[in-house]
Amino acid sequence: MSNPSNIPNATISRLVTYLRILEKLEAQGINRTSSNHLAEWAQVSAFQVRKDLAYFGRFGTRGMGYTVNVLKRELRRILGLNRPWNVVILGMGRLGQALANYPGASDYEFSFVGLFDVDPDKVGTQVRGMTIQHLEGLSEFARQQPVEMGFLAVPPERAQDAAQALVDAGVKGILNFAPVVIQPRTFERPGREPEIADEWRGVIVENVDFLAGMKRLAFFILNPGLRDLDTEVEV
Amino acid sequence: MSNPSNIPNATISRLVTYLRILEKLEAQGINRTSSNHLAEWAQVSAFQVRKDLAYFGRFGTRGMGYTVNVLKRELRRILGLNRPWNVVILGMGRLGQALANYPGASDYEFSFVGLFDVDPDKVGTQVRGMTIQHLEGLSEFARQQPVEMGFLAVPPERAQDAAQALVDAGVKGILNFAPVVIQPRTFERPGREPEIADEWRGVIVENVDFLAGMKRLAFFILNPGLRDLDTEVEV
Repeated sequence: MSNPSNIPNATISRLVTYLRILEKLEAQGINRTSSNHLAEWAQVSAFQVRKDLAYFGRFGTRGMGYTVNVLKRELRRILGLNRPWNVVILGMGRLGQALANYPGASDYEFSFVGLFDVDPDKVGTQVRGMTIQHLEGLSEFARQQPVEMGFLAVPPERAQDAAQALVDAGVKGILNFAPVVIQPRTFERPGREPEIADEWRGVIVENVDFLAGMKRLAFFILNPGLRDLDTEVEV
Repeated sequence: MSNPSNIPNATISRLVTYLRILEKLEAQGINRTSSNHLAEWAQVSAFQVRKDLAYFGRFGTRGMGYTVNVLKRELRRILGLNRPWNVVILGMGRLGQALANYPGASDYEFSFVGLFDVDPDKVGTQVRGMTIQHLEGLSEFARQQPVEMGFLAVPPERAQDAAQALVDAGVKGILNFAPVVIQPRTFERPGREPEIADEWRGVIVENVDFLAGMKRLAFFILNPGLRDLDTEVEV
């Protein structure tokens, strides 16, 4: 990519959306598309689509649009989806089980390599052919194989400690489903700003907050017409 | 708000994040905060925080920051969370059940008023004290009480039809958990562009795609350092 430091986080979110659209087009046997079509499906402007893609190179032919499977492959490469990722799930309640069985994960190289809980009724039982392990065993587990991502599906009051267990095990990316903000561990320094603990440097937390979606819906239902605008391109 | 048509969708997402942070601060007994603090927690710049809030008015005092419970109340009002919302869930598998039991929904005026499925083994059973109804009964159910939001937790191959059932029942906001893109119903017009069906006008679909979160994580793990930048403010 030409200048990675200028890429807005929102662009990455949109690339994920474009990829999903391209996969659907490919499944329908459609071979070509355009920024206008991608824009319509993604609910942004065609200008935004072209701007987002331009951060990473040139993919289309002027006036000809994009070849679906070529752009799909490029987006998978840009997003890092052309390599395997080892994922663990912490918290094997209804949500953790739903995630372990989530349709579509198998289309990517995401592998659920470990399922963890602290409930003695759950530890030792099977979900999708895997035995649920006790959370205490996570660090040993992670010494035997790299664990790159962790899903937090624990109750909110356990989320911070569970996140710490993930980070202590070397996890660099956390998908947090608990409705709480996860904080990096910090330590105090007399007379200075608190400093982030070493194990948290470079750790990314993505929050999947069901309520956030409900809250955005509430706003857009009350303010019809705003949703289709893509005013960011007008800045 | 001064000029609603200029509000980027991303601002609404961030308002939801700020609100979550303010609620956490209030729970910790903290009465005052600043754009710097909100920015740090939300992983954006302080300039972005001030810009997002400025769309809706003036909330802080220069040099004094914000009163936590005042800003919280204002954000709840802006987002439409100071009024009740009737929500139904379609699909009562593990995910639908997890959603019905999701902690935190009760802090808001979101009420799960109906749970629906098509599986005869599920219809008639109880979840959280409510009886699961057959999807066929949704339109009649919606005539008896307004249903404003619907959660789609059905298998991907059923999502489009289930969305249509929600919209036919008058639902204006859909939170889609299925890993597919929901399309408005359109009808063909000879020699012209397809036209969106009346019942879909003004309908908002928010996608909660667990895989989207995983894909963003993959990118940010492979491109460390990008995540903390908030380059949108530099536009």
